[in-house]
Amino acid sequence: MTNEGVFVPRSPYAAPACPSTAALTALPVTAVTLGDGFWGHRQELNTRAIIPHAVGWMEKLGWVDNFRDAAGDARYEHRGAQFADSEIHKLIEAISWDAARGRNDNDEILDRLLSALAGAQDPDGYLHTLFGRPWQQPRFSDLQWGHELYCFGHLIQAAVAHHRATGSDRFLAIARRVADHVCVMFGDDGMNRICGHPEIEPALVELFRETGDERYLRQAKLFVDRRGTGTLGLHEFGTAYWQDDMPVRAATVLRGHAVRALYLAAGAVDVAVETGDDELLDVLREQWDNTVARRTYITGGMGSHHMDEAFGDDFVLPPDRSYCETCAGIASIMFSWRLLLATGEAKYADLIERTLYNVVATAPSDEGTAFFYANTLHQRTEHGSPALSDEGVAIRGGAAGRQAWFVVSCCPPNLARTLASLGSYLATASGSAVQIHQFASATIEAGGARIEMTTAYPDDGRVTITATGDASVALRVPAWAEGATLTSGGETAAVAAGGYTDPVPLADGESLVLDLPLEVRVTHPDERIDAIRGTVAIERGPEVYALESVDLPGDLAFEDLRLTGEARWDGDTVTVRASAAPRREGAWPYDSAAAAAPASGERDVRLVRYHGWARRGPSRMRVWIPTA
Amino acid sequence: MTNEGVFVPRSPYAAPACPSTAALTALPVTAVTLGDGFWGHRQELNTRAIIPHAVGWMEKLGWVDNFRDAAGDARYEHRGAQFADSEIHKLIEAISWDAARGRNDNDEILDRLLSALAGAQDPDGYLHTLFGRPWQQPRFSDLQWGHELYCFGHLIQAAVAHHRATGSDRFLAIARRVADHVCVMFGDDGMNRICGHPEIEPALVELFRETGDERYLRQAKLFVDRRGTGTLGLHEFGTAYWQDDMPVRAATVLRGHAVRALYLAAGAVDVAVETGDDELLDVLREQWDNTVARRTYITGGMGSHHMDEAFGDDFVLPPDRSYCETCAGIASIMFSWRLLLATGEAKYADLIERTLYNVVATAPSDEGTAFFYANTLHQRTEHGSPALSDEGVAIRGGAAGRQAWFVVSCCPPNLARTLASLGSYLATASGSAVQIHQFASATIEAGGARIEMTTAYPDDGRVTITATGDASVALRVPAWAEGATLTSGGETAAVAAGGYTDPVPLADGESLVLDLPLEVRVTHPDERIDAIRGTVAIERGPEVYALESVDLPGDLAFEDLRLTGEARWDGDTVTVRASAAPRREGAWPYDSAAAAAPASGERDVRLVRYHGWARRGPSRMRVWIPTA
Repeated sequence: MTNEGVFVPRSPYAAPACPSTAALTALPVTAVTLGDGFWGHRQELNTRAIIPHAVGWMEKLGWVDNFRDAAGDARYEHRGAQFADSEIHKLIEAISWDAARGRNDNDEILDRLLSALAGAQDPDGYLHTLFGRPWQQPRFSDLQWGHELYCFGHLIQAAVAHHRATGSDRFLAIARRVADHVCVMFGDDGMNRICGHPEIEPALVELFRETGDERYLRQAKLFVDRRGTGTLGLHEFGTAYWQDDMPVRAATVLRGHAVRALYLAAGAVDVAVETGDDELLDVLREQWDNTVARRTYITGGMGSHHMDEAFGDDFVLPPDRSYCETCAGIASIMFSWRLLLATGEAKYADLIERTLYNVVATAPSDEGTAFFYANTLHQRTEHGSPALSDEGVAIRGGAAGRQAWFVVSCCPPNLARTLASLGSYLATASGSAVQIHQFASATIEAGGARIEMTTAYPDDGRVTITATGDASVALRVPAWAEGATLTSGGETAAVAAGGYTDPVPLADGESLVLDLPLEVRVTHPDERIDAIRGTVAIERGPEVYALESVDLPGDLAFEDLRLTGEARWDGDTVTVRASAAPRREGAWPYDSAAAAAPASGERDVRLVRYHGWARRGPSRMRVWIPTA
Repeated sequence: MTNEGVFVPRSPYAAPACPSTAALTALPVTAVTLGDGFWGHRQELNTRAIIPHAVGWMEKLGWVDNFRDAAGDARYEHRGAQFADSEIHKLIEAISWDAARGRNDNDEILDRLLSALAGAQDPDGYLHTLFGRPWQQPRFSDLQWGHELYCFGHLIQAAVAHHRATGSDRFLAIARRVADHVCVMFGDDGMNRICGHPEIEPALVELFRETGDERYLRQAKLFVDRRGTGTLGLHEFGTAYWQDDMPVRAATVLRGHAVRALYLAAGAVDVAVETGDDELLDVLREQWDNTVARRTYITGGMGSHHMDEAFGDDFVLPPDRSYCETCAGIASIMFSWRLLLATGEAKYADLIERTLYNVVATAPSDEGTAFFYANTLHQRTEHGSPALSDEGVAIRGGAAGRQAWFVVSCCPPNLARTLASLGSYLATASGSAVQIHQFASATIEAGGARIEMTTAYPDDGRVTITATGDASVALRVPAWAEGATLTSGGETAAVAAGGYTDPVPLADGESLVLDLPLEVRVTHPDERIDAIRGTVAIERGPEVYALESVDLPGDLAFEDLRLTGEARWDGDTVTVRASAAPRREGAWPYDSAAAAAPASGERDVRLVRYHGWARRGPSRMRVWIPTA
């Protein structure tokens, strides 16, 4: 019944995306060991808290039991949403990456989840717990909302991860049968249909990479080419919601539901790279450029609307209820990472850094047991109590503080698999050179050498690289890092911001030092972003700062604060000078006279790192602060 | 089977709301005849186009056939949404008001609709086409979303209107049986439940007013008192969505779904007035004050969010995708009107005027065959094509231009009943005095006199009042009308803005003239409305103006336009001075440098009345215009 042993693994190393051809070659998670520090701490939290917490909820809510029940013949009531299966898949992926790095804390869980899942597969390969049994909806009867191919995609991605991480065929064999079923049902001779939620596309390309079976690549290309031909039908939010409004190749910017758009874009890059389709790759690079220039928040967050969890029109980036779904941040990293590997351009790594520090790091609580689903840039009330289901689970996003679990629960397991594989995003190889994309205390084994990176980044801007064995190392200099210097062989030289340093050859035991200037930056928005006219944001290094009400002096109302002077680093955080805005209390908030000049005096106000907000009790918060 | 003839009508005149006690007494629609002019034209359009158009769609979509089918025993497929019945009710109300004024154009339709409806009533009084038959959902099994009591409310309101307009018991008898059923099922000894969508509350009070039967008032009070006690259960958007988060008496501001909140508030005023509950009335006045001061658009529009069609937090009034549902505008007029009658305070009439000119007048197309559902204050793209259903019907609101019909179709029939009864909102009586609230060419019969109002308002600010018979007339002076004068008996005197003039006694044949200054006003928003910081709006009289892309010189991009100088009336519309903003094209829209000073020269740009936008082909539009 299984295909065990019949295929030849082509990319037998443990990285989340392994293109066959690339400007830069991804490193396996096994090659990068995070030390203590900003990200090492969070990866540890993931292993110890986030993963067990997430699995606990899925057992409690019966989402694992869906698989156990599906293995039998008895009628059962499916629990959770249409995509509940996919949360288990993503957690298997997360635990697999951990296992690859020798962190076997959750291996027992892994075995339990895989056993449950394996029993639920139908003889023809189909594996979804909500459809197809006699008392259930027929298979593929609801491609708009059923999320069947979406769940298959996460299953396949997880199985590829499990195979890369452990070498075992146990899960991959299941995934191949799922993929084979998809190729039969949706291939050239099958249904001319696609899934309402992209995800199967990058998964099938990864399965091709792992197995060498070109059917999977062809099927992924078919799905990409079919999208935009109207096969999904109508939608209240418009067909752009699921990117079925125009072919991928005709679009110049991302639109519609942000996670859908970004998963599709990631999959389309995979297809373009593996099929050598440079024209498609160029289209996707243009989509990235335009999306970043016009539809991305300063945090790297994407998605402006709550209603459809979607991108807004150009320059519609309101901080109020900015959606910035955690999953969209992760999907954006997937898209950027694939373009970085394909092109070697630093701008993609710049955006990944921004998104890691300001979306990914923002979502989980300090204890790893609660999460933001939406990451707003402006919280006006302290009492953002969420809507809870009968089981006490938050129903969806909202900005109502971090929540233990969600009915729509895509984000926590997505965080788990991202944090577990984070090492892979730190560095790549190209020929004999190693490129450092992200700064963190870590040990990197690449090009026959062992590279030690030591840094207190992002608190401090010094990054020290020491080689054991001969190495050649290039370092990213972020676009914001004007004035950066590189010290090598006792010489210090300026390096240009917004790119990579030339590769520096290091003999065994030699070091080099990158100094990134962490000046506090006062950042102005483009004039066309109407919602934040007359405001500035404060940044330092890769971190965006925010004003949080718990830090306000008692005599200054949150909504009245106006920046008056400079912003400075006080050794711990950023402090700004501020005064109270004029206030015009009235029965009607529109008047022929503008408000008078500020009356109250200036004072110091401490800001908080954006990712650090809402960690000291209920609060109000804003990233964009009006100027006096 | 009917109660025909058994009750004594207590308010036997044709007005949309007839409180038993009031500071001001409403006039029947029969007492006010609109002449040619802004509103007379639109009322005529309603009779000739809007009503037949709406009825045509409801026949075409099978919503009238729902009633015909429900009269038989055969199984049928219900067409339309849960609230489809209510659209027919609202159209019956509209045609009834027309009939009262002697406009019998649509009487045949009225007869047809009433016949269909009458046959569908169950022996116990229940009348809804979606629930309760053997193959349908059980009655009252989905109070969250079923809209049964909501539909009953519109039925009862329409029946009261029909009775007031025609004197016939034909519909009222049906409505009494519906209401009796509601009192049995939801009374003190019945279910302790409420409807997810308020509307039954004001309807039951009106039925009490029409019949004198106090059970209906008691039932309305029960529904008002029950809301906020959590009987509706949970909701993804929070229980504030349907105002079940706290008791009406505990709230200080409107929140949640705007139409729900406003219908409830209107019904609560009715209950407060009829039960002499001044405490409740004070609470509602405070809710109105806070909602108007913090949660209302300059157009009078209410509701900031698309997702839940809801009010935002205080000062969350983004022009982008401002929802401002047409029905919320109408519901706001209902709430304000009831408070105006109860208190006689001019601020309520001020808001009604603002909402009439900038929401109600904006919604319908020139032909009366297409409508805005949402009334945005900023349209960024020309190609706002809507999502259409299989039948070619727009699915909900959006800002995608006026649409012929909607799947969620509450707005067009709501417009129809409002325009048909508009005369009632022009004037009231109090003792021997007549109060003029709205300015329009019209003949008003009140207090034994006949008052002729002549004006070209809102193009011109002169309003001339001539009496036939002795009269005493007070005129509203809008809050914006600083410098208004009143000429009477050859003497001209200044009158204070934001209130009513003293009543002026007029002998038979005498005139008085109110001159309202229609200076162009440049209006600044409260500093706390973040989304429009650094912008101004242009107003003249009751009309808000907008910048529409079709009026732009070719060398000035819509998003770059900045106001530089004064705004002036050019005899036809408002013209402003403007230049192009600096533009900073870049890969990332956030920068340490603010954009440089404007470079391009100044020029004149014509604005359009907000209600006049989107009438000359596809366009982009904004109400709040950035200043240089």
